Amino acid sequence: MKLAVIPGDGIGVEVTAEALKVLRKLVPDLQTTEYDLGAKRYNATGELLPDAELAEIRQHDAILLGAIGDPRLVGPGILERGLLLNMRFQLDHHVNLRPSRLYPGATSPLAANPDIDFVVVREGTEGPYTGNGGAIRVGTPHEIATEVSINTWFGAVRVVRYAFELAQTRRKHLTLIHKTNVLSNAGAIWSRAMETVGAEYPDVETAYCHIDAATIYMVSDPSRFDVIVTDNLFGDIITDLAGAVTGGIGLSASGNIDASGTNPSMFEPVHGSAPDIAGKGIADPTAAILSVALLLRHLGRDEDAARVEQAVEADLATRGDGPIKTTEVGDRIVASL
Amino acid sequence: MKLAVIPGDGIGVEVTAEALKVLRKLVPDLQTTEYDLGAKRYNATGELLPDAELAEIRQHDAILLGAIGDPRLVGPGILERGLLLNMRFQLDHHVNLRPSRLYPGATSPLAANPDIDFVVVREGTEGPYTGNGGAIRVGTPHEIATEVSINTWFGAVRVVRYAFELAQTRRKHLTLIHKTNVLSNAGAIWSRAMETVGAEYPDVETAYCHIDAATIYMVSDPSRFDVIVTDNLFGDIITDLAGAVTGGIGLSASGNIDASGTNPSMFEPVHGSAPDIAGKGIADPTAAILSVALLLRHLGRDEDAARVEQAVEADLATRGDGPIKTTEVGDRIVASL
Ligand SMILES: CC(C)[C@H](C(=O)O)[C@@H](O)C(=O)O
Ligand SMILES: CC(C)[C@H](C(=O)O)[C@@H](O)C(=O)O
Repeated sequence: MKLAVIPGDGIGVEVTAEALKVLRKLVPDLQTTEYDLGAKRYNATGELLPDAELAEIRQHDAILLGAIGDPRLVGPGILERGLLLNMRFQLDHHVNLRPSRLYPGATSPLAANPDIDFVVVREGTEGPYTGNGGAIRVGTPHEIATEVSINTWFGAVRVVRYAFELAQTRRKHLTLIHKTNVLSNAGAIWSRAMETVGAEYPDVETAYCHIDAATIYMVSDPSRFDVIVTDNLFGDIITDLAGAVTGGIGLSASGNIDASGTNPSMFEPVHGSAPDIAGKGIADPTAAILSVALLLRHLGRDEDAARVEQAVEADLATRGDGPIKTTEVGDRIVASL
Repeated sequence: MKLAVIPGDGIGVEVTAEALKVLRKLVPDLQTTEYDLGAKRYNATGELLPDAELAEIRQHDAILLGAIGDPRLVGPGILERGLLLNMRFQLDHHVNLRPSRLYPGATSPLAANPDIDFVVVREGTEGPYTGNGGAIRVGTPHEIATEVSINTWFGAVRVVRYAFELAQTRRKHLTLIHKTNVLSNAGAIWSRAMETVGAEYPDVETAYCHIDAATIYMVSDPSRFDVIVTDNLFGDIITDLAGAVTGGIGLSASGNIDASGTNPSMFEPVHGSAPDIAGKGIADPTAAILSVALLLRHLGRDEDAARVEQAVEADLATRGDGPIKTTEVGDRIVASL
């Protein structure tokens, strides 16, 4: 297995080290190439994602990313657009896969402590994330700025199909989250994609939910969700909330997947680089380790993926409320594999 | 006081009746004109908001709206765009004011039962709500749809100023919620508006939060918020979540305010017409009644507004967990005024 590793910034470096420990244990022939990309590199050289490096990264089976960003070194948006989203778009990571499970032992802020086990299929290459839009008369009283959400039938149908396939392997329930009553042009594509593709999956029950109402269900009745499919921005929002109600985004894994297999897929924790706790060895590497499970499953190693998830589950169940030590979590999980 | 009343559909009719009971008790010279707008009217006549009616509505001091919509009669988006948003846009309701308080007695789904008391100032006439955008090649494999978010300096500055003014009357803390790291053109306007206007309010502390992170704080640490200012779509999303964590949107009031005073402002519960429980007399009229408090305050009757809020607070504190009867809640609140 040839893996491109981008530890990135802050706690990204720390959690990636633990994720790699776990992966090495399961994949003895693992070959890694590390790429120094992120805030420090940009700050020192002005480079974000040079073409040559991206070309090299493409030669790998998958990418493992820690976290990107350091507000002390780089202003908002630069690394996001120039590196992270750049990679998602150039490698056609149209499926942004984000499972949410409330593990026994994890602490939900919800009083009801409900059964939560769903997966969000977030579109990853369209919507308001395309960088389309602009501004005129900037800095004057007449400034106008636009953000253009781009939505295609092609783009919606392929993730909707992915979501139906996934739902078939689970509880056979798929919810579209959108805002069709206001964003009617984009909404029409998504609704029609659900109907058209859904006709091929008569065994999967479908539901629809506006994004605003979805946030209510996420705290009042999250058990209703099995698979969710949604656009890039709504998926960004709902998966952070999903992470929060399942014990914090320190546990939330994600895969940026090119489902066609043309480009390597990229696996990363949902959390950021957390400069406030970086370097202290107290970041929870669980999200990065669960991202390794997604990576393994993506590469066809279902059994290894399940072993990682079981090890995480066991660790969370016995962990208690004490402070976390990053390396100890990794060691415990490696030991229990 | 001349009030235009639009009961609308479903439970809108039921909760409006209770809200009017309360208002009549406090404003003996209340003159109301009722407008039959909504799903039934549209279904029967094809009319959404005739010009002549809007012109009449403009002649009132304020508007009280119940809820609009009935999915059995009208498809998604038609009444929203043609009636509700049409009114917000034509009457320049640029401040969509949505307070959130966890009242004693109200049941939050959050285990920590935190202190929650903040106000969202949601922009109401811009962003992705303008209806700008379109679609080509509809129904073909090459369909493309756009949704254009329109953002102006003028539009951002006026609500940011409103929010700073409001923060000065409260705990002097203002949070901007946006997604500046991705929506950088619009984000730049909002961030700069915060800086520029903020310079005139040095006593108000400011903070910034991405919309995705904001949903996390809303369930993990909602006490951090005092006043929130945000764009139209993010405001829509975060206020539903805010309603959910403060005991359900059955308690969430809102004002659609033209802060210039040129047009009448419109007050409505955040919830919808809830066709599933309509006609049963079990809808909670509290949100509509709290909207009356916002209406009274908007018209300069601060003392009456406070009396309504106190009556609601007392009712919630003593209500218990039994089923709600719409008219009884109204009667109890009128009695305790
Ligand atoms: C960092 C940011 C650009 C990114 C996103 O908005 O997609 C992050 O929030 C995420 O969810 O992966
Ligand atoms: C009904 C809908 C158009 C509306 C909105 O999105 O603004 C509603 O959700 C609200 O929050 O008032």
